[in-house]
Amino acid sequence: MKLYDTPLAPNPRRVRWFMAEKGIDDIEIVTLNLMQGEHKTPDYVAKAGLANVPMLELDDGTCITESIAICRYLESRYPEPNLFGRTPEEIAFIEMWTRRAEMLVATPVMIGVRHTHPAMGALEQQVPAIGEHNLTSATRALKVLDRRLAESEWLAGDRLTIADIVAFVGIDFGRMIKFKLPEDLPHVARWAEAMRSRPAAQAGMPQRAPA
Amino acid sequence: MKLYDTPLAPNPRRVRWFMAEKGIDDIEIVTLNLMQGEHKTPDYVAKAGLANVPMLELDDGTCITESIAICRYLESRYPEPNLFGRTPEEIAFIEMWTRRAEMLVATPVMIGVRHTHPAMGALEQQVPAIGEHNLTSATRALKVLDRRLAESEWLAGDRLTIADIVAFVGIDFGRMIKFKLPEDLPHVARWAEAMRSRPAAQAGMPQRAPA
Repeated sequence: MKLYDTPLAPNPRRVRWFMAEKGIDDIEIVTLNLMQGEHKTPDYVAKAGLANVPMLELDDGTCITESIAICRYLESRYPEPNLFGRTPEEIAFIEMWTRRAEMLVATPVMIGVRHTHPAMGALEQQVPAIGEHNLTSATRALKVLDRRLAESEWLAGDRLTIADIVAFVGIDFGRMIKFKLPEDLPHVARWAEAMRSRPAAQAGMPQRAPA
Repeated sequence: MKLYDTPLAPNPRRVRWFMAEKGIDDIEIVTLNLMQGEHKTPDYVAKAGLANVPMLELDDGTCITESIAICRYLESRYPEPNLFGRTPEEIAFIEMWTRRAEMLVATPVMIGVRHTHPAMGALEQQVPAIGEHNLTSATRALKVLDRRLAESEWLAGDRLTIADIVAFVGIDFGRMIKFKLPEDLPHVARWAEAMRSRPAAQAGMPQRAPA
C-alpha cells in the first residue's frame, strides 16, 4: 500500500491522525506538493479519478480517495484500537457523530477558510458571503458539540473515535483564519485540549519554531 | 425499530429508497410534518439530539440520525441485496463513490434548493450567491459522474449501491427548482433513466395527478 499525502490540508491530516492513533508505520508515504500541482499530473489523476489528496493505492492497484473511505479501509487491516465501532449499533452511532462533526462543523470551517483566506484565492473562486455564512454556521454548531461533550467524554462515547478526529481537524484548520472556539463552551474546550495533547495531533505537521 | 420519516425532503428519501431496494416492510414508519414543526417537539429533539429527520429508533432505545448511518445499520440487519459492499476493498470503493456523489453533487443541489426556492425562505436564511455557486458546482461535477458512468454501469461498479441512491436522490431533489441535467452527458442520462424506472424511486413519494 502507498498513501499519497500532503501537509497542511485537513483531509490528509485526518488520515495521518488516524494512522498515528493506530501506530501504523509500515505504509509508504508519497508527499505531494499541491502548490506545484503534483496532484494534477496526468498519472496521478488517472489513478485517483480526480485531483484529490489523500489517496490510498492498494497492492492490487485499486486507488481509494476520500479520507473517511481510506480510514475505514485501514480499520479493516489494522483493527486496533478500534475507531469505527464493533457492533452494528456502535458503528451506526459513531457514523452519526462523524457525519454531524463533518457537516455541522468541519466542512463549514473548511469552506470558510477556502472562501476567506487570501492564499486560497489561487485555488478557488472566492465568494466572501459563502465564507462568512459557513463560519457563522460552524460557530453556532459548536454548541451542539458542547451539549454532547457535557454528557460524554468523547463525541461518540467513552473513547476517541473517527468522529473526534474529523471534528478536531476541521476546527484546527480554522487557525488559518484565526477561527477561535467561543469561550462559553467549556466542554468543547476540555475536549479540544485533550485532542491537542494527543501525540497523533503532531503527525506529519510542520514543526513550529521554538518560542 | 421505528423510522421517523417525512415526505419531500431528500435525506429521508434516501432511506426509503434503500429500504425499498431491500424489500424491507416490517419497520414501523412515523411520518412527521416538518411544516407543522413535528421534528422540533421537545420529545423528538430529546431522542434525536437535533431536529433532524430521518431518525431510526432501535429496539433498545438508541436513536440514530443521518441517513447514511441509518442505511448502514439497516444493511447489517437486512444484508441482501448488498448495497454497501462485502469485502474491505469493495466497502471502501463504494464509500468513496458515495462521498463523491454526496459532496460533489447531492449536497450542492440541496444547498442550491435551500438558498433559492421561495418556499425554503421560511426554513433558512437564504443567500442567493450561495445557491448559485452550489448549483454551478453541481452542474460541473456531473461531468465527473458522466466520465465514471461511461466506464461503469453504476457509480461504484456493476450493481446499484448506496452511491447511486445518494447521487440520484440529490439530483432529483433539484426538480424543486427545475434543475436540469445538461444534455451533453449521455451516460448520466442513461443512468438517471435507469434510476427513475426502479420501483424504489416511487417509495413514499407523493402520487402525481394523472395527466
